[in-house]
Amino acid sequence: MFKIRSLITALALAGSVSAASAWEALPTAAPAPEDNPTTDAKVELGQMLFHDPRLMSVNGRISCSSCHNTMIGGDDTLTTSFGHNNQAGGRNAPTVWNAAFNKVQFWDGRAASLEEQAAGPVINPIEMGMKSWDEVVARFKPIEGYRKAFEKAFGDATISQDTVTKAIAAYERTLITPNSAYDKYVSGDKSALTEQQVRGMNKMAELGCTGCHSGPAFNGPGVFQKFPVMENGYFEAQYHFKKDKGRAEVTKKTEDEHFWKVPTLRNIAFTAPYFHNGSVKTLREAVKIMAKVQLGKDLSKDEIADIVAFLNGLTGEFPRQKMPLLPMIPDVSQN
Amino acid sequence: MFKIRSLITALALAGSVSAASAWEALPTAAPAPEDNPTTDAKVELGQMLFHDPRLMSVNGRISCSSCHNTMIGGDDTLTTSFGHNNQAGGRNAPTVWNAAFNKVQFWDGRAASLEEQAAGPVINPIEMGMKSWDEVVARFKPIEGYRKAFEKAFGDATISQDTVTKAIAAYERTLITPNSAYDKYVSGDKSALTEQQVRGMNKMAELGCTGCHSGPAFNGPGVFQKFPVMENGYFEAQYHFKKDKGRAEVTKKTEDEHFWKVPTLRNIAFTAPYFHNGSVKTLREAVKIMAKVQLGKDLSKDEIADIVAFLNGLTGEFPRQKMPLLPMIPDVSQN
Repeated sequence: MFKIRSLITALALAGSVSAASAWEALPTAAPAPEDNPTTDAKVELGQMLFHDPRLMSVNGRISCSSCHNTMIGGDDTLTTSFGHNNQAGGRNAPTVWNAAFNKVQFWDGRAASLEEQAAGPVINPIEMGMKSWDEVVARFKPIEGYRKAFEKAFGDATISQDTVTKAIAAYERTLITPNSAYDKYVSGDKSALTEQQVRGMNKMAELGCTGCHSGPAFNGPGVFQKFPVMENGYFEAQYHFKKDKGRAEVTKKTEDEHFWKVPTLRNIAFTAPYFHNGSVKTLREAVKIMAKVQLGKDLSKDEIADIVAFLNGLTGEFPRQKMPLLPMIPDVSQN
Repeated sequence: MFKIRSLITALALAGSVSAASAWEALPTAAPAPEDNPTTDAKVELGQMLFHDPRLMSVNGRISCSSCHNTMIGGDDTLTTSFGHNNQAGGRNAPTVWNAAFNKVQFWDGRAASLEEQAAGPVINPIEMGMKSWDEVVARFKPIEGYRKAFEKAFGDATISQDTVTKAIAAYERTLITPNSAYDKYVSGDKSALTEQQVRGMNKMAELGCTGCHSGPAFNGPGVFQKFPVMENGYFEAQYHFKKDKGRAEVTKKTEDEHFWKVPTLRNIAFTAPYFHNGSVKTLREAVKIMAKVQLGKDLSKDEIADIVAFLNGLTGEFPRQKMPLLPMIPDVSQN
């Protein structure tokens, strides 16, 4: 299926699909899988788990929010993130805001759902570094506050990888940033974007950016896309994009080399640095690179400025959350 | 003045002061210094600053909340904290909850106020690692969201060490946990503590614990106290309390060796591990050690259990905060 989607994307990229009809506002709610309906109790528990550094990282210092900080743009603003023992990860932390609208998760798309994604970093030796999910579950067991929260969310107090990741995913499905200037514009308020932003928007369609970046989250219609499509020694020397083989690192297939999940453009002005390796610091440079290596176009300074202005119009309203209060860990030792 | 207070403490320790009259509930508001009255705008800004890892640490990864986490007991649950380049600090992170009621700040009391305390870790090379406050201020300058928040809090948009630390201190003055079982008990609800807890409470007065740990925050009437008072080879071999000279590290005076700020007992069940070096994992062991090395008493298992039960009654109600939304950092580079 992925191959077919890539083909469709490639066609869209070639300009055969009219992008104008693809301008869509961001939904204010995300669909949930049948076996994990979103409920208040699950969201509340998921928010606790997402922010708890004590239980899911081997050193007790790393939570999901360490790298996916929802007080900012849903990432950590670093080139690549740091995990257990200060080890640097190989890729830039993707934003958790609107991740519910990703078709796959991780840069290489190796998780099909938010639930599956949530299970990964916990037992990744260079991220949270737990040995196994059994070890995670054992840490939770003595904590009455968590037992009660799991019971409220799932009907019984059983704590498992399944319930932990379901709760986290349910919480993440609420992390949506609607009502950007762009959303207001496409919903009828023609004053919501400036003239320059509208120029940038039309330029993106004209250039073919929307071949990959359209739809409500600007991450479709395809799922994966090659990056860079065209060889460019100048950028490669600076940014080393091709060091990482992307999806092929998972599938081990030559034809997947340098294929990546198409990332959302939502809140992109708030999620520097850019690309899978976080090597590019500014949105101007990122736009310039994308036009050149994906579409073979050299943009003028003004064209870049227009597109950047439009991309700034994709910054949404971040819901004001309540800060979770995490349960006390009782002293169960014998001394 | 400190010497006089230590003397008073020593007298209290000797049992000459009746502790019974010292049982007091925690105030629900903390007094503020004349030059930094607490206002909503200052508290809101201070909460943002307290939680922002991007601007006040050299690696962009450490905020005040990294070690003083208000989603839990106001600390980090670690033996000692970790700072820039994964360097381990030498002392256990004290809780920020009710820190407004400390008479001095830091374990060695080297800061006289919350404002003064807040300035320290930012430019400590093994904590947040910034070179200077000028460097901190320069990072804030381009950020419109912060300029506006400073203007709202202080009447103008000038950002300085003075205003940053004042805002953080104003926020910290709101971090109060009233209405513990103990508070309810001393306010007249005699059913709020169990019989065992009341036994533990009376035992603390009888033993003389309250000589140092009384008043609303259980950290007075004195300011500093020697720890350990009595030599104990057995505990010293296990916990190395005397490796760190405490207040003498600051004053360089022999008579200050192993003197420490008397820490609050509020929420102590939630702030393991214990003591200045975080070497003791359980409250039972901490109580046993304190009775032995401070008061020369060997407690029975039941006496320890009673006191621990009472100390659990000092866990207050943690106010449910709103999570701050931190301002976007604009791209001000030229490429």
